[in-house]
Amino acid sequence: MAKKPAAEPTCSIARTVQVLGDRWTLLIVREAFRGRTKFNEFQDVLGIPRDVLTARLSDLIEAGVVERRPYKEAGARERFAYHLTPAGDALLPVLGSLIQWGDEYRRTDHGPTRIYRSATTGEPVHVAFVTASGEIVPDADIEIVPGPGERNAELPAVRPLAHA
Amino acid sequence: MAKKPAAEPTCSIARTVQVLGDRWTLLIVREAFRGRTKFNEFQDVLGIPRDVLTARLSDLIEAGVVERRPYKEAGARERFAYHLTPAGDALLPVLGSLIQWGDEYRRTDHGPTRIYRSATTGEPVHVAFVTASGEIVPDADIEIVPGPGERNAELPAVRPLAHA
Repeated sequence: MAKKPAAEPTCSIARTVQVLGDRWTLLIVREAFRGRTKFNEFQDVLGIPRDVLTARLSDLIEAGVVERRPYKEAGARERFAYHLTPAGDALLPVLGSLIQWGDEYRRTDHGPTRIYRSATTGEPVHVAFVTASGEIVPDADIEIVPGPGERNAELPAVRPLAHA
Repeated sequence: MAKKPAAEPTCSIARTVQVLGDRWTLLIVREAFRGRTKFNEFQDVLGIPRDVLTARLSDLIEAGVVERRPYKEAGARERFAYHLTPAGDALLPVLGSLIQWGDEYRRTDHGPTRIYRSATTGEPVHVAFVTASGEIVPDADIEIVPGPGERNAELPAVRPLAHA
């Protein structure tokens, strides 16, 4: 695993990657979105070693993405289930944009494995940039400019689009 | 670094995570979106060891996300610069959704480091789910259903929203 940087990074992407920047972590979050909550379920479907799963779940709890809730099945001792918190739920666009990229650029002959759609209308959805007033902005028109938290003045002010 | 799974995973997220599931890789892509192209620029801004940077750039080239282009400065030998390909450009919503999550759930007192906005109108944007006809669908109304590539019949058909 990559080491954590010594200082808290100023960039939101770097801080998010500190939480999610591990293959297993993202796959655990994916399974949580699929409704899995039990340790053994995560272990079985991912084929992840128990000690690694324990460590990654613990990281996700510490990061506030997952919470432990006790449950008890008849005749069994109390166990814990792992549920997404509101911060975990808010990762849905991250998952949606990852799957969208994979469907396009890591395509297989079998077609998409999962379809994201509106539960109300059944219409398929994709991830896009939108303004506060609900206007869709094409990727090619997106520019990235320094915000108030930017401390590194050497960074270029505006991203030159590579293929615009 | 996490080991690659033995078989090609059926899930688009897993295939994408095979490319991006490393902290350094995502930060290199972030810097490429900021307009950096030169080896030494990536090295200086990220503080990444040369051998790790070489390996990650090589992975990104193999994955079709970055391409090498020769360039020559006066009096110097020919060198290579690293540019995003169209597949690399298509990662913008992934970066946008990561920064959006970090701005909300890994907030600092300094405010956002980077603002994504329309180059045409200057309006800030965020990442959202939209239909083909341009309707925005709230996250809470998104359901995930099996697509044609789904081979694991045991998976729950629909994501039960944890906080709906």
